[in-house]
Amino acid sequence: MPTKVIRYKQDGDTSYTLSLNVTMDLLINRPRSVNVIYVSSNLEQNNASKQLYDLANKNNIPIEINDKAFNILSPKINCHVIGQFKKFSTTLEPDNSHIVLVNPSDAGNVGTIIRTAVGFEFGNIAIIEPATDIFAPKTIRSSMGAFFSANFETFKNIEAYRKKFPKHNLYAFMLQAKINLEDASLKPPFSLVFGNEASGLSDNYADFCECLFIQHSKKIDSLSLPIAASIAMHYANLSTR
Amino acid sequence: MPTKVIRYKQDGDTSYTLSLNVTMDLLINRPRSVNVIYVSSNLEQNNASKQLYDLANKNNIPIEINDKAFNILSPKINCHVIGQFKKFSTTLEPDNSHIVLVNPSDAGNVGTIIRTAVGFEFGNIAIIEPATDIFAPKTIRSSMGAFFSANFETFKNIEAYRKKFPKHNLYAFMLQAKINLEDASLKPPFSLVFGNEASGLSDNYADFCECLFIQHSKKIDSLSLPIAASIAMHYANLSTR
Repeated sequence: MPTKVIRYKQDGDTSYTLSLNVTMDLLINRPRSVNVIYVSSNLEQNNASKQLYDLANKNNIPIEINDKAFNILSPKINCHVIGQFKKFSTTLEPDNSHIVLVNPSDAGNVGTIIRTAVGFEFGNIAIIEPATDIFAPKTIRSSMGAFFSANFETFKNIEAYRKKFPKHNLYAFMLQAKINLEDASLKPPFSLVFGNEASGLSDNYADFCECLFIQHSKKIDSLSLPIAASIAMHYANLSTR
Repeated sequence: MPTKVIRYKQDGDTSYTLSLNVTMDLLINRPRSVNVIYVSSNLEQNNASKQLYDLANKNNIPIEINDKAFNILSPKINCHVIGQFKKFSTTLEPDNSHIVLVNPSDAGNVGTIIRTAVGFEFGNIAIIEPATDIFAPKTIRSSMGAFFSANFETFKNIEAYRKKFPKHNLYAFMLQAKINLEDASLKPPFSLVFGNEASGLSDNYADFCECLFIQHSKKIDSLSLPIAASIAMHYANLSTR
């Protein structure tokens, strides 16, 4: 009998991967968190789908052909594989550098930042609340599966983060900063701190952070959050390699 | 009598800015292209809206209170100002470096790249067709108004671009490239060439481009197009300053 398909809820204990590739990343990195995999009756039989079946079988994860699941969970996207998994908790590695996202509001942006962060070896990401739901399917989808290679920890406020990681040197990216990114010397372990898409970081971050700026022409007001974060991570990765 | 509001069409000769800020960028940079400005009856009377009225009056541009326009043109977004403008044509500056987008398919990505390009002084952008519609309101909106500070030119294929700009040194960003971005020395005027979101650039680009790679961990398949382009533009801007 097919399982009942439950719509995603922020306060629920499960979430979903909405593509074959992202479901593969889930199976590879977090097999024990997976409850069930839904496939559509249109799923093409090829190498990629064979790998999915093999990996699911190896981990004793049920695969269900369930077209209704796609109507409920991914009505607007072209998707033939959905993984349902139990939300899991991870903690940040205290000796590695971190990314700190303060009040991010857009799930797509957070997903893109996670993808880039994992690409530049910043797989430890702190989220300061209030924030968009990091377990939302849209976040996971935008991360292209990098979500399952990263560690996340949410904090009620920046003070709670600083208390837990007192050794970290904090570098805050602010439009009003006077020091250019490339003139800073980043001392590991460090935290690259980015504010909300619209409002950025409040001035008081200067009290406990070194404030940095990514120089750009006055023809634009600012870089977008994922672009600024990605440039900073690329630069930090290069300069501390 | 209110003008008839016309839905955006790719083959039409007008397009729209869908926010107060982007409409201000339109008025400042391309006042002679503007036909009419629609404002909603909910537009707040404040400094920003006063500036809009002043600038429109100075340029003899009609402002119409027309709530219907917002239902037709921006039903899903919170928007109180729309500018209708005639599509214009620009040409690339032959002595400056360029960005070349080969077959970009996502309007939001192209808008984000334009915003970053203008920020890093790459205000000359070639689009190789087939490509997403650069005049689509979504592109303009994603550029946050930077659209109106940039020059665009579309080409049927890369050969047509190369024929017009034979002096440019082409650097193509490809996953299969062997040279890291930071090991290349970019000789101006140059063109930074980026492929389609899903398929990248075909191998034959190696015949006429120096192929570069933005080094990242194997935990991700690739960086997203706007992220890769932004990192490359930031780096190129720094290294040739």
